[in-house]
Amino acid sequence: MSTSLDSGWFTEVFDSQGSAFSLKVTGKLHDVQSDYQHLEVYATETFGNLMVLDGCVMLTDRDNFLYHEMIAHPALFTHADPKRVVIIGGGDCGTLREVLRHPGVEKVTQIDIDEEVTRAAERFFPSLTESNDDPRAELAFTDGVRWVDEAEAESVDVLIIDSTDPVGPAEGLFTTDFLRRCHRILRPGGVMVQQSESPLYHSGSIIRSLRRDMREAGFDSVATLPFPQPVYPSGWWSVTLAGKGGEVNDFREQDAREAGLPLDYYTADIHRGALALPPFMRRAFD
Amino acid sequence: MSTSLDSGWFTEVFDSQGSAFSLKVTGKLHDVQSDYQHLEVYATETFGNLMVLDGCVMLTDRDNFLYHEMIAHPALFTHADPKRVVIIGGGDCGTLREVLRHPGVEKVTQIDIDEEVTRAAERFFPSLTESNDDPRAELAFTDGVRWVDEAEAESVDVLIIDSTDPVGPAEGLFTTDFLRRCHRILRPGGVMVQQSESPLYHSGSIIRSLRRDMREAGFDSVATLPFPQPVYPSGWWSVTLAGKGGEVNDFREQDAREAGLPLDYYTADIHRGALALPPFMRRAFD
Repeated sequence: MSTSLDSGWFTEVFDSQGSAFSLKVTGKLHDVQSDYQHLEVYATETFGNLMVLDGCVMLTDRDNFLYHEMIAHPALFTHADPKRVVIIGGGDCGTLREVLRHPGVEKVTQIDIDEEVTRAAERFFPSLTESNDDPRAELAFTDGVRWVDEAEAESVDVLIIDSTDPVGPAEGLFTTDFLRRCHRILRPGGVMVQQSESPLYHSGSIIRSLRRDMREAGFDSVATLPFPQPVYPSGWWSVTLAGKGGEVNDFREQDAREAGLPLDYYTADIHRGALALPPFMRRAFD
Repeated sequence: MSTSLDSGWFTEVFDSQGSAFSLKVTGKLHDVQSDYQHLEVYATETFGNLMVLDGCVMLTDRDNFLYHEMIAHPALFTHADPKRVVIIGGGDCGTLREVLRHPGVEKVTQIDIDEEVTRAAERFFPSLTESNDDPRAELAFTDGVRWVDEAEAESVDVLIIDSTDPVGPAEGLFTTDFLRRCHRILRPGGVMVQQSESPLYHSGSIIRSLRRDMREAGFDSVATLPFPQPVYPSGWWSVTLAGKGGEVNDFREQDAREAGLPLDYYTADIHRGALALPPFMRRAFD
């Protein structure tokens, strides 16, 4: 398996699906082996800076707005009145920035096991970390599973699992057992959201299992929202929401419409559109 | 510029955007230099068969449903009562098949300059050509621009430009002059639709120009609908509709809901969702 077109490219091979995506790079800016993973930052020709963890594309300057807006705003506009938000993973701080755009949010804690990710984001993706000094933001660098276990029952309104793929450090975040622990710390009416891989590649596998596991863990409703994400495998990605008591297939549409957030992708209509699943996904979930 | 990861991959380099997409191939099934372009068909490991024209991915078995459904059904459900449909390009016959699913359609003519594309589709993508024997279908292998010039004024309800990229044989299909000729052959209330490249890569260039050119050519309303397309550059693609008299930002939603078409991606809700443009695209168009 070759992993580069030639020395001028960074390539992520997605072996299980026989596809690969490449970006032309102009140089490597950063390369560190943390206690948890191999972190690299490249300068690309047309996508700005690129962060890579264990060989997988995490984000680029050019298109991270899609993922960060879609993991944050649908969940926050689904919850009736989110005040206490927790992010597991998300060390690049882009999700944190989006959450802090909601004035009703009183406290957000981001728990990423790997401080190196946040340090690299501060240096190479400064726009993502620009809200880190917000007094409502708290950054913890510790194990997310343990943090959830030690959190008070019914203490969180929105829980965001902004993790890497379900292999490596994030493997423990894709289990029914972990979902049960998440359910425990959510208040009634709480909403959980998890990045859930590619609609084309994973509707019949990872997404289907996650939805079933969420229901088994006690969640009352589940919704998978697809969105484009050019630098991830297949260029198409998803988040899956789960509601403790509430219905996650609907949202505060009027509030989303009137919020006037300065976004590039998310709108109330985009949210409504993302709730409309293509038939092939619906069939895969049944 | 290297164009393969190694001999086991087909790679399309999208040089102007510094990105590349690759599929693992298990063999080459077909290789012909037609009068117009270089046509190859590969067997891939996970995407079924792959058709390539002049080095650009045209379609795979696995994900062509996205493009073919989105270039056909939004336009057909936007027109009030489409009876006469013309497809320029579309030699693989996948768009033709989708159009023929509409029982009200009385005649569809597909005009592709390159008969080799249709012959290859018959052999290597037989599901796409399965409706070619429908008595309402007519296949012509001639120059689309000339065909449009020779067509009667106000004789067509829906005109579909299912072309390759605006370089090479399809260059003439992306000009104001050609759009004017298209406008001429549409009946009042007619709808034209054109594949319009990547929302991420081309919102401020090709799509913006096409929309302006459509208005300059006399069309009264314009709508760009994004959709996922994993094997095209950026994994995200679009079609742009233009209406002669009618409004293409709305559609026969109830009919689309009740049609019961056996589709994998398109639904009335997906159509509604695709009409909701992300703010970054709206800004690029203004």
